Amino acid sequence: MTAVGIDAIEIRTGKLKLDLPNTFAPEKGDDPAKYTKGLGLNNSSFPDVYEDIVTMGANAAKTLMDRKGLVPEDIGRIDVATESAFDHSKPVSTYIAGCLEQVYDGDFTHANKGERKFACVAGTQAIDDAYNWIRAGRNRGRAALVIATDTALYARGDPGEATQGAGAVAMLIDEDPSIVELSTHQGYGSKDETDFLKPNQQFPSVDGKRSMQVYLARMREALEDYQSVAGKVELDDFAYAPFHTPFPGMVRKAALLAYRHVIRDTSYEDDLAGEIGRQPREAEYDDREAFEEAIREYMDELKGTDQYQAWYADVVEPTLGLAREVGNWYTGSVHVARTSALRDLLERDGDGVGETLLVGSYGSGAQAEIHAETVCEGWQAEIEALDIDAQLAARYDLSWEEYEDVHDVHEYDKELDREIEEFTAPEAEFVFTGWGRMNERKYAYIA
Amino acid sequence: MTAVGIDAIEIRTGKLKLDLPNTFAPEKGDDPAKYTKGLGLNNSSFPDVYEDIVTMGANAAKTLMDRKGLVPEDIGRIDVATESAFDHSKPVSTYIAGCLEQVYDGDFTHANKGERKFACVAGTQAIDDAYNWIRAGRNRGRAALVIATDTALYARGDPGEATQGAGAVAMLIDEDPSIVELSTHQGYGSKDETDFLKPNQQFPSVDGKRSMQVYLARMREALEDYQSVAGKVELDDFAYAPFHTPFPGMVRKAALLAYRHVIRDTSYEDDLAGEIGRQPREAEYDDREAFEEAIREYMDELKGTDQYQAWYADVVEPTLGLAREVGNWYTGSVHVARTSALRDLLERDGDGVGETLLVGSYGSGAQAEIHAETVCEGWQAEIEALDIDAQLAARYDLSWEEYEDVHDVHEYDKELDREIEEFTAPEAEFVFTGWGRMNERKYAYIA
Repeated sequence: MTAVGIDAIEIRTGKLKLDLPNTFAPEKGDDPAKYTKGLGLNNSSFPDVYEDIVTMGANAAKTLMDRKGLVPEDIGRIDVATESAFDHSKPVSTYIAGCLEQVYDGDFTHANKGERKFACVAGTQAIDDAYNWIRAGRNRGRAALVIATDTALYARGDPGEATQGAGAVAMLIDEDPSIVELSTHQGYGSKDETDFLKPNQQFPSVDGKRSMQVYLARMREALEDYQSVAGKVELDDFAYAPFHTPFPGMVRKAALLAYRHVIRDTSYEDDLAGEIGRQPREAEYDDREAFEEAIREYMDELKGTDQYQAWYADVVEPTLGLAREVGNWYTGSVHVARTSALRDLLERDGDGVGETLLVGSYGSGAQAEIHAETVCEGWQAEIEALDIDAQLAARYDLSWEEYEDVHDVHEYDKELDREIEEFTAPEAEFVFTGWGRMNERKYAYIA
Repeated sequence: MTAVGIDAIEIRTGKLKLDLPNTFAPEKGDDPAKYTKGLGLNNSSFPDVYEDIVTMGANAAKTLMDRKGLVPEDIGRIDVATESAFDHSKPVSTYIAGCLEQVYDGDFTHANKGERKFACVAGTQAIDDAYNWIRAGRNRGRAALVIATDTALYARGDPGEATQGAGAVAMLIDEDPSIVELSTHQGYGSKDETDFLKPNQQFPSVDGKRSMQVYLARMREALEDYQSVAGKVELDDFAYAPFHTPFPGMVRKAALLAYRHVIRDTSYEDDLAGEIGRQPREAEYDDREAFEEAIREYMDELKGTDQYQAWYADVVEPTLGLAREVGNWYTGSVHVARTSALRDLLERDGDGVGETLLVGSYGSGAQAEIHAETVCEGWQAEIEALDIDAQLAARYDLSWEEYEDVHDVHEYDKELDREIEEFTAPEAEFVFTGWGRMNERKYAYIA
């Protein structure tokens, strides 16, 4: 069976940044470590006044198409995953295709265009839909373009305000991929939850504590479901575990839970037994509460062991590199984490082909999905070509007052009583140019 | 290769109706024929105050599951297509699964849940995603539930106000289907268009004239693209041609165009030549304008021929039966048209197995998709089981003042200064019960 997977990736960050320890923390009267250590975030990305989910998505897609030498005729499907859609009927993918048609010969008339919603699990669903479309023999030799794009804003003053972010990830899904092959097996953990939602509102209603519990519970279910079809996951099976990263501190919690789950009844548990004992088993306890207390104690000790810390530093920490600098990108989140892992692999290992990733996607509301990916021949050139470091370095560093202006600019219902000037100059990119007569958003390419 | 397709269908209409010739027309001072003949509509469906896209979708799904003897464990995937989503991040499918879990043993934790947006082409995309998922061997023996649900409202006084509607279509996608098998081949016609959109607004911005041109142009492209892979479509290949039906008058225009296209260079064109001449060919004309004028004249004459009228009465008219009584259901539209066709087939032909349908889906913004479906063994029992006639007959007939109240109830941003009582009594169905503390919509099952 021919491999199907991710053949190319491009990341486009919003061109502005908010420095959390140096700009956000002082304004809130907080210790900077609350952000850098607690949440694990240094900066958030924001869109400039001429950027939005369409421009970021179209710019990521154009970079990808140019680098791979693609024209519209090569693309049979464009799916966009977003939680920031500004239109209830016309999919964002049609806007992005319209942008791309301004600069390429030919058009996307033949391409199936769609939109999905469900945080980063929606990006993964779009990848899966493309994978299945190719496997079903319906792609006519064409590849699929999947774009995860979001401007993830919270209401000013919301506890989530420090975890904002904005950017897009474009991915090409094709046969004989040059980055990773996707596993056939997938695991799901999905329940109707009221943890984070946006009912008729741009900014989310969030129950922060519940949201973390739901993330961990759905991920555990997805892992168990994955193991029910793919067989038991062993600690040494995976070089990296990129997970949905609302903020790195969340992944730190999930990693500890996953580690405990995976090493149970293995030699790794035995190796630790001398130091911290074996994992509590529910049957050994009189009631659920005593058992849970014992689990908490075991986890606290596990976290401090060299064995766990070495695994975490190897397998999880490298997936968080980009998230620390850009914040939460909702639908793009796990796709940024995968890219961080592959950038680390590039530094660590000249070869890397055949290494596997355990990928955990998630959307509040809520659903987790877990699958495996295997690194393919050619991946180094794809990852080396990324210009995300240059993009991050070039971001405009917002003052507090400027941040307040930018937040207002991107709030849909805000009537601005002042003109906010752009902070950066557009160059060789798609930009938002204003509203049309039917209230549609309009775009142009600035050479 | 095992057949994959639609194994069961259920339709759920909103429980209220607005009578267009007898209630709407007099209020607007219009000739009733403007609606019954021009648009081709008799009634529109509306949701009662306790109905919405979730209740209609969940009620359709429950009827389907009960009739087929399914439990949550049998369903591996729930995709909802809608243009009426009230949440920017949490998919409607999670709300619907939450409803169903109130009444079934077991749960949908294992089920992949998603949401798509793009009028009725989104429903078709969800069907295709499920088809591909099964073909890719990832369904673990489970079926997919696809639910197209919308409350299609226009602003009061908008020219589109007469084409409103509300309802849901639930479909089960599975191997060895009992209704229709889907073709592998598909054709697309897709362009970035500003014909109908809802930018940060519940009610659409519509350019009516442009919208009709775009519908016809995209459908023609989709038909040509379909023929490029499936071979030339012949007039006798298809028993029915169910198309996206914003209103039946639109399909009447599309049918005439499709007929002209399909009979070109066939004996059907020759048979008509004595009566109305052969179709104008562009090469025979000095300029585009003269050619288009000649085409218009040919079409006017074609429309009046017995040959065309017999074909239309056989292949197209029967697809419009339900649409005339319920209005536009956006994502459900083509799925209602398919059902109308199969209801006609049941009256016309005791067997029908092996008959084929040419199915044309469409979403403004804009994209058309065309594929073929073949009627399978067992379809009669599935179609006979539909209770849509009883549902239509039981609808509450709104007075004009009541219609105004119902429109207000379902307008998101409307602060009501009065209590609107329900018009019907809920029985054995899911109902909306109010808003929760995080602004989420809540539901219960009324036995």
